Amino acid sequence: MKNLLIIGGGTGSYTILKGLKAYSDRYKLTAIVSMMDSGGDTGKLRDEYGILPPGDVRRCLVALSEESDLIKKLFQYRFSSGSLKGKNFGNIFLTALSDITGSDEQAIKETGNILKIKGRVIPVTLDNVDLCAKLEDGSVIHGESNIDIPKHNPELRIKQVFLKPKAKANPDAVDAILNADAIIIGPGDLYTSIIPNFLVAGIPEAVCGCKAEKIYICNLMTKYGETHHLSASEHVKALKKFAKIKCLDNVIVNNGEPSHELLKEYAKEHSFPVSYDVKELYELGVKKVIEADIMNKQVLIRHNPERVAAEVVRIIGM
Amino acid sequence: MKNLLIIGGGTGSYTILKGLKAYSDRYKLTAIVSMMDSGGDTGKLRDEYGILPPGDVRRCLVALSEESDLIKKLFQYRFSSGSLKGKNFGNIFLTALSDITGSDEQAIKETGNILKIKGRVIPVTLDNVDLCAKLEDGSVIHGESNIDIPKHNPELRIKQVFLKPKAKANPDAVDAILNADAIIIGPGDLYTSIIPNFLVAGIPEAVCGCKAEKIYICNLMTKYGETHHLSASEHVKALKKFAKIKCLDNVIVNNGEPSHELLKEYAKEHSFPVSYDVKELYELGVKKVIEADIMNKQVLIRHNPERVAAEVVRIIGM
Repeated sequence: MKNLLIIGGGTGSYTILKGLKAYSDRYKLTAIVSMMDSGGDTGKLRDEYGILPPGDVRRCLVALSEESDLIKKLFQYRFSSGSLKGKNFGNIFLTALSDITGSDEQAIKETGNILKIKGRVIPVTLDNVDLCAKLEDGSVIHGESNIDIPKHNPELRIKQVFLKPKAKANPDAVDAILNADAIIIGPGDLYTSIIPNFLVAGIPEAVCGCKAEKIYICNLMTKYGETHHLSASEHVKALKKFAKIKCLDNVIVNNGEPSHELLKEYAKEHSFPVSYDVKELYELGVKKVIEADIMNKQVLIRHNPERVAAEVVRIIGM
Repeated sequence: MKNLLIIGGGTGSYTILKGLKAYSDRYKLTAIVSMMDSGGDTGKLRDEYGILPPGDVRRCLVALSEESDLIKKLFQYRFSSGSLKGKNFGNIFLTALSDITGSDEQAIKETGNILKIKGRVIPVTLDNVDLCAKLEDGSVIHGESNIDIPKHNPELRIKQVFLKPKAKANPDAVDAILNADAIIIGPGDLYTSIIPNFLVAGIPEAVCGCKAEKIYICNLMTKYGETHHLSASEHVKALKKFAKIKCLDNVIVNNGEPSHELLKEYAKEHSFPVSYDVKELYELGVKKVIEADIMNKQVLIRHNPERVAAEVVRIIGM
């Protein structure tokens, strides 16, 4: 049974895990999740209870869960009124278990058992750190949520990202990397979900030093204030520069086309399809570029879990 | 297999269910729970989310649960700081499920499944009602929590209790009563946990009209502002008068003796052992008075689950 490792965070990891769970009788699935999220309910719980940010962990746990739809719904449930307004049930669950068990790691493991997950979810670090970004005008933004939902001029490019204070890798994460047969990076917000994992000391070294086939799943759309105007090659360049990942074997890019109506909606948010140039990608040292229609086209432009999983399976074999 | 029904609320029901769960291979256990609690976290959730008060239901579910100690601990967990301060996890769980399933009843059933309970927990009514009490000076107190934690002169006796508005019985509760082989009433706060069940239209009629053996487990200690100076006979008289329960077959009273130190602590709160006069109890029409040492004597004066259960089993047989 091959070990499949997904490195990411946010809805990207949720999507790909959901797709790959259908193959969990053939692959052992492990998700490494970035721990720098500081926004919304997650950020508030982190501040108030000193726990690791629960949001992305919770999403991955739900994606891998074999529990009933009701339980999965419950874990994603967010209160819409009253004194619990804005609070997510799964986050509350992880916060309470962290206090009872005395450890965030233990809370994640126990929640995994309760949700009957097929696989493992591992925080990339157990250190409490914040993500910072330096823009091309020299200004520095502190906190993931301030980069994610920019208050800065979104036309300015990100020139540097770093953690404050420095973080060391969770030994379980390094172990999982060293035992992986394939490592899937992305999809997800490049600077706020993907790269933060590789800013943790020990992670890029383990990824590039291990035997696993490395696959990067490129985003479908650009994000204003984060990846504005960036092509697929520029995503790969950013991974090289900021994440120190110079060892990508495969890059999956989307060649599906959203409807004009949907594109118009996204354009209002200054979000555009990520363009790609196959030749350029090969010149960056990628061994194989896979062009495929891997998108959903209804309501939101998102990766289609089944299609992405099928492409991954085609690359790594059974 | 005999059907055992417990009518109550609060920690009293929790205690007796915990004791009787050891016999769940011999008895089918059902708990009918009063729905008039309006205090603390429960009262707040009731106000904010329009749900039935979850606290007592949750305690009964945990008492009957066959889940791991960790899960049971989680359901009783209360946040001690931050924006969730004072909130109980199990109450949050029930509130979220009520919204997702669209029904408090369904939420209780699903939580029962999740907690793998041995038995059933049934709200006495599905109506949203408040408990009111009239004191001997003619003043009326609104809301269970205002009676439970008195702001009124605690020396004044309660002369009348009623619900506002009137409530009708949950059909499942009536069914459970009619199918019971034995009905256990109490222990618990007389006016705020026990009697409220019988203020619901249809409940006293069903209890006194059914074939089940009726057992009243009397409280160990009096409660200032609620049962101040009341003897066991006066508890039974209050049940007759306010709960319309004139059909008690058995009354279990405690003859164990707490330490002087413990009694001194309780006396500070104007709480004293409930005295009893066997002759007086028989004169009230009780068929059998059981005197037994059914108490814990450490830290708090509480019913001992195993001892109370043993007395109940002795009465009703296997």
